[in-house]
Amino acid sequence: MPSPAGRARQLTIVGVGLIGGSLGLALRQAGLGYTIVGHDREHSEAGKAKRMGAIDRAEWNLPAAVEAADVVVVATPVQAVEQVFRDLAPHLKPGCIVTDTASTKARVVDWAEEILPAGVRFVGGHPMAGKETSGAEAAEATLFKGATWCLAPGSSADPAAIETVASIARAVGARPFFVDPTEHDSFVAAVSHVPFLLSVGLVRLTTESPAWRDLARVAASGFRDITRLASGDPTMHRDICVTNRESILRWIAAYQAELSELAEAIEGDGTKLERMLKEAKEARDVWVASRRLTEPT
Amino acid sequence: MPSPAGRARQLTIVGVGLIGGSLGLALRQAGLGYTIVGHDREHSEAGKAKRMGAIDRAEWNLPAAVEAADVVVVATPVQAVEQVFRDLAPHLKPGCIVTDTASTKARVVDWAEEILPAGVRFVGGHPMAGKETSGAEAAEATLFKGATWCLAPGSSADPAAIETVASIARAVGARPFFVDPTEHDSFVAAVSHVPFLLSVGLVRLTTESPAWRDLARVAASGFRDITRLASGDPTMHRDICVTNRESILRWIAAYQAELSELAEAIEGDGTKLERMLKEAKEARDVWVASRRLTEPT
Repeated sequence: MPSPAGRARQLTIVGVGLIGGSLGLALRQAGLGYTIVGHDREHSEAGKAKRMGAIDRAEWNLPAAVEAADVVVVATPVQAVEQVFRDLAPHLKPGCIVTDTASTKARVVDWAEEILPAGVRFVGGHPMAGKETSGAEAAEATLFKGATWCLAPGSSADPAAIETVASIARAVGARPFFVDPTEHDSFVAAVSHVPFLLSVGLVRLTTESPAWRDLARVAASGFRDITRLASGDPTMHRDICVTNRESILRWIAAYQAELSELAEAIEGDGTKLERMLKEAKEARDVWVASRRLTEPT
Repeated sequence: MPSPAGRARQLTIVGVGLIGGSLGLALRQAGLGYTIVGHDREHSEAGKAKRMGAIDRAEWNLPAAVEAADVVVVATPVQAVEQVFRDLAPHLKPGCIVTDTASTKARVVDWAEEILPAGVRFVGGHPMAGKETSGAEAAEATLFKGATWCLAPGSSADPAAIETVASIARAVGARPFFVDPTEHDSFVAAVSHVPFLLSVGLVRLTTESPAWRDLARVAASGFRDITRLASGDPTMHRDICVTNRESILRWIAAYQAELSELAEAIEGDGTKLERMLKEAKEARDVWVASRRLTEPT
């Protein structure tokens, strides 16, 4: 993006919680030369982000936060994105690049096409990073190191806009991964949304059992680890499930079939079961090793 | 157990891998006054355990390892227990207390009743502790700290024998939990064996998908954590599944119903789903907090 001479380009982060705050911290360390403005519906969050050094300036007024921005990163939960687009749209300058970090992409790209004005270029984004805690105070400059950053350019995005957003991802240590919005949503359903639901299902199965008082004593670290995702934010996950319903239901059906095949193998003499367990162990071990190899140390 | 005057009581651990080795380390630190003898089918494991200080003496010959023992702890995988009982039985002295640490209890108690001679007292045991690595070199004196140690006395166990085994569990920092063998197997199916299978199911679902190459890039720490159990030993888990088939299949069927209910809620407007997610989060958070409160720091 060209900018008036003598003035740094402005990047505005809307929503400076865990993801937005971490992005600010990482970008300021990366020295890409942006002036980073932060806005949050919760003024206290923007104040925290400023004190932590995640942003150069907090701006409580959304129009004022974005009107001079060359790049706007919408880092709110997915359910807030549509309204934020509506609130932003009249105030963006021509040529502005808009991106986001929301958990699903098909709806977000649709909203961008429908709501953002002509001349504004949209590139959907989703960094595959996070942790259980939320809010600006949980932000870390290293959150995106080694992470995959999914990019789903909208029809308004030209190569320069796409490269700008990819360079932001690379600057914070992530690897850009271009993906169709609908494919993205199917992928994250399989590796993120359905795993969350499996974890919830196990918690419900055990805690609602008449034997829970005893189960609670016998459950140990394996149970704690596999149920950890179930402690995630219920409202955020409800919205993820609702905006990604079709993909999630398709993968759950496939998972049910997989479980039935395992149950069938357990009824057998153990030969087929052992083969299935070995294949799963090998496949996971290969994946873990490959991720280690390609992750920065 | 009374012992000849002037001689420490002897406790023999058969199988000095992760569990047996950790038990030896913890018991020697606890100063219960046992002379600890270790035997392992793999002589190198017994040698390692000796060098680590997990046992006072390694004995390569099983009869020689147990013939003077006041207490014998069989710390082998569940599939080896039956044969170990057969190998031990002719060499145990009258009044000897036998316990074990195997993952399932109904079969083990049956084997004990069938194989161990009259006059030998059996108390089944199962410490709810472990980690992914195995073998003596992974052993830690603190492995059982705060853990629940399930105890399932056989019909041959008198109060003195039960108290001896409970005092061993307490000495290493665990909390004895008396449980019927069949109930035990149902409990561990729910909180340990089925969670392992859920993890395997997710690995198979994703790694066997035509989209795996892309999924592998998008999968992040949540996927890594929820699939961790699938990297456990396939042979050990095959045997656990085969010796605990009925309980596991019952819980899998109940889990399938739970997943179907979640899928139904996802098809709705999100109200019921959010309630279900909230309940699960609260139940898990309460459990985690309760475990922290009662765990030694």
